[in-house]
Amino acid sequence: MTNRHTGADVESKGPGRPRDERMASAVLAAVVELVAERGLGELTMAAVAARAGVSKPAIYRRWPTKQDLVIAAAESRVGSLTVPDLGDFRAELRELLTARLRQYRAPGVDRLLAGVIGSAAEADAERSAYGAYTARVTGETRRVLERGISRGDVRPDTDVAAAATLVAGSLLFRMLAEQDLPDVGLVDAVVDMVARAVGVRD
Amino acid sequence: MTNRHTGADVESKGPGRPRDERMASAVLAAVVELVAERGLGELTMAAVAARAGVSKPAIYRRWPTKQDLVIAAAESRVGSLTVPDLGDFRAELRELLTARLRQYRAPGVDRLLAGVIGSAAEADAERSAYGAYTARVTGETRRVLERGISRGDVRPDTDVAAAATLVAGSLLFRMLAEQDLPDVGLVDAVVDMVARAVGVRD
Repeated sequence: MTNRHTGADVESKGPGRPRDERMASAVLAAVVELVAERGLGELTMAAVAARAGVSKPAIYRRWPTKQDLVIAAAESRVGSLTVPDLGDFRAELRELLTARLRQYRAPGVDRLLAGVIGSAAEADAERSAYGAYTARVTGETRRVLERGISRGDVRPDTDVAAAATLVAGSLLFRMLAEQDLPDVGLVDAVVDMVARAVGVRD
Repeated sequence: MTNRHTGADVESKGPGRPRDERMASAVLAAVVELVAERGLGELTMAAVAARAGVSKPAIYRRWPTKQDLVIAAAESRVGSLTVPDLGDFRAELRELLTARLRQYRAPGVDRLLAGVIGSAAEADAERSAYGAYTARVTGETRRVLERGISRGDVRPDTDVAAAATLVAGSLLFRMLAEQDLPDVGLVDAVVDMVARAVGVRD
């Protein structure tokens, strides 16, 4: 085990065919740009196809509904993370939140995530699809907490699901409900508080 | 000062004229019902007027935009709280989150809050209006934290804004992002964690 690698990387989903991947990445970039410019309400498949330079059927083949497409776009910007074992819960938590902060602060991501939340509450939405996306996003937080419990620097009585919710909710609430971009100061404060909340007292 | 009163009440905004208040309450109830049934995307002023039994101009006079109306509806269900001084930060935090839990679990509130977040990210939204609403919602959490600092059972170095964000984000994230209704178990876990995060060690 090495602690040399401290970058939290976005997980690769495997290579796929390069041409498909180029198409997917052009389409998802078009979604992010269009939502950043005009909001999710005005997003149409036609506009995405035009911006990405692909056909509408090509988009529908891969993402049958607008919700599928929007969740895929969100996941391309705020997706699964992998934080290596740094031998210390607090350091791993900081790593995780710093990577998340970088993703949240990228242009258009605030509008995109707000749109995903709003559209999951619409009549035709499949709500479980968004819940499943969230579970993938918060998975690494749970793994980091469980590793801390095994290691002994996280309290063994920690409610891992609740702690992951606490961690994940803070930056998102600041951005989407308080309408203020989260910053390093918030990450520092959350790391301090969560480390006291679930850390073993030294 | 008495600790007898342990109910956290929704703040009254003053009486107003009874007829106006009856109209307002019928309109806001109609909004909540319609959003619960069909989502915010399909909400129209005409449908609200018909359901509430009032004229569209009467609605527009009081709430000039759909966003104003939707925020008012959200605030009528999840608004300011007042938690009395219970002499103990942890007890006050539990009081506050228990009251919030009751509000969140009311029918239609999940869809309404998700819709408010989504619509704040649309092109025509006045984003500051939603941020101002959130500031009213989280105000009592900040007051409870500050009272704890004055009393001496909350750490004097607490970042009050960040702690309020941490508290507020947890239940909302569980509901809107994890798509799971928050429950007493989550409140208990959050109270435990936040009390350790910002409480003075005993």
